[in-house]
Amino acid sequence: MEEDGSIELLSAEEDKHGGVTVNIDDPHPIHPLIFASSLKASLSNWTQQGKKGVWIKLHIQHSNLVDSAVKAGFRYHHAEPHYLMLVYWIPDIPDHLPANASHRVGVGAFVTNTKREEKDGKFKGTGVWKMPTGVVNEGEDICAAAIREVKEETGVETEFVEILAFRQSHKSFFEKSDLFFVCMLQPHSFDIQSQDSEILATQWMPIEEYARQDFMQKNQLFDYIAKICLSKLDGEYSGFCRVLTTTSSGKRTYLYYNNDDDWHLSASKEEQGN
Amino acid sequence: MEEDGSIELLSAEEDKHGGVTVNIDDPHPIHPLIFASSLKASLSNWTQQGKKGVWIKLHIQHSNLVDSAVKAGFRYHHAEPHYLMLVYWIPDIPDHLPANASHRVGVGAFVTNTKREEKDGKFKGTGVWKMPTGVVNEGEDICAAAIREVKEETGVETEFVEILAFRQSHKSFFEKSDLFFVCMLQPHSFDIQSQDSEILATQWMPIEEYARQDFMQKNQLFDYIAKICLSKLDGEYSGFCRVLTTTSSGKRTYLYYNNDDDWHLSASKEEQGN
Repeated sequence: MEEDGSIELLSAEEDKHGGVTVNIDDPHPIHPLIFASSLKASLSNWTQQGKKGVWIKLHIQHSNLVDSAVKAGFRYHHAEPHYLMLVYWIPDIPDHLPANASHRVGVGAFVTNTKREEKDGKFKGTGVWKMPTGVVNEGEDICAAAIREVKEETGVETEFVEILAFRQSHKSFFEKSDLFFVCMLQPHSFDIQSQDSEILATQWMPIEEYARQDFMQKNQLFDYIAKICLSKLDGEYSGFCRVLTTTSSGKRTYLYYNNDDDWHLSASKEEQGN
Repeated sequence: MEEDGSIELLSAEEDKHGGVTVNIDDPHPIHPLIFASSLKASLSNWTQQGKKGVWIKLHIQHSNLVDSAVKAGFRYHHAEPHYLMLVYWIPDIPDHLPANASHRVGVGAFVTNTKREEKDGKFKGTGVWKMPTGVVNEGEDICAAAIREVKEETGVETEFVEILAFRQSHKSFFEKSDLFFVCMLQPHSFDIQSQDSEILATQWMPIEEYARQDFMQKNQLFDYIAKICLSKLDGEYSGFCRVLTTTSSGKRTYLYYNNDDDWHLSASKEEQGN
């Protein structure tokens, strides 16, 4: 409430879909009753203006306001450690709100040296040699994540060659799904320095020996992946390489596709990633 | 509080990672002070038991309890329309909690009939003929989502052939990323019934005409995708097909890989998806 008794409206940014976003990250605490009055008045205002989706990004320090927003008709959209995003759809027609993220994305890196040896790490407690794997960070390209994971786990610098295969699995954590991309990388150096506390040992390992491990052969999925990697080394397999493209809005994104010997996308050198 | 004045502990399910999950979806309201006392006593109990991660799945009808959980040290992990998942890591070492979902997954369906005509929809207000696209639902396979989208938008029954290419883009909605898979499908029928209110018209369109649209040629990404589709029709391109695999824990997942003429994974017929 302002000093004259009027209710202050929430400040909001308009988006290009006819919606507004309120970002509540004020360092000072906000009283739930003040917030509830401001929200009610603001919603009435946005309704008159013909707004559609109303987003509230509520910093976790304002967790005392979540209940007021829900009581005003908002539902949850997504959350990250430090904020909760709530949404309210004003029009009397089904909403066009974007779906929440549904997949975590992981990478496995297949790195070989000139002696057909693959770089593997032995994980604590398993006795199994596995390729370096990890989760793609928010906003990170798949190809960049594979390079980063190898560097973090072994200190080896690499460059991206191809995505050899990928698998999609469900209910990986709660109701969420998982996409796992097997990437082939070319090493720039061959000295291994184990850098991750989770890894007991790292070594260059003959690829045939890797594929022969009992653990790999018993797991159909890993067995297939090992076979694909072997075929790639034998020059009999072609995965998806990448090309950096620009959309009409100027956004730069990687397209992954098959660029084998028989066929090439007409992309100039500058468009290729590095 | 129980009648005798003792504090009731929260009931929790143990997980295989040394953690516990509390599911709060009681149809009756819970008072925040009662909840705060129970949570405090339970946390002390779990700490003594050497538990690691504590998860609280809080139904949206209990939004009045979010603040108590945060005040007890919980942070947000993820949220869906009807619940908020909070988490607290007890041990004095860095946490091994799973990362939140970071990507939305979309599909575009490339369906051709025997006359090299592609099935396209004309979207309201754009004047552009586009392939059917949509978002992969929670727990849905990419291949199944492509078939569903074509059926929903045009009534045409199809079967999955290959993933021709995919692109990853960032900040598609807020900080979340997007993976978009271009799938090739084989139609079982050729009668089109437009079924989606969003689509102005659907038709079979000669693929060369589709690729020649101004909109496609000006957008580098769409231009590449159109070229890939054309090459596929000419028999010069090989994307990723799928194989259903079973992990050692009995989970069935699709692996997508290149299965072109020169090379085949040794998979028996029964293992192939349909």
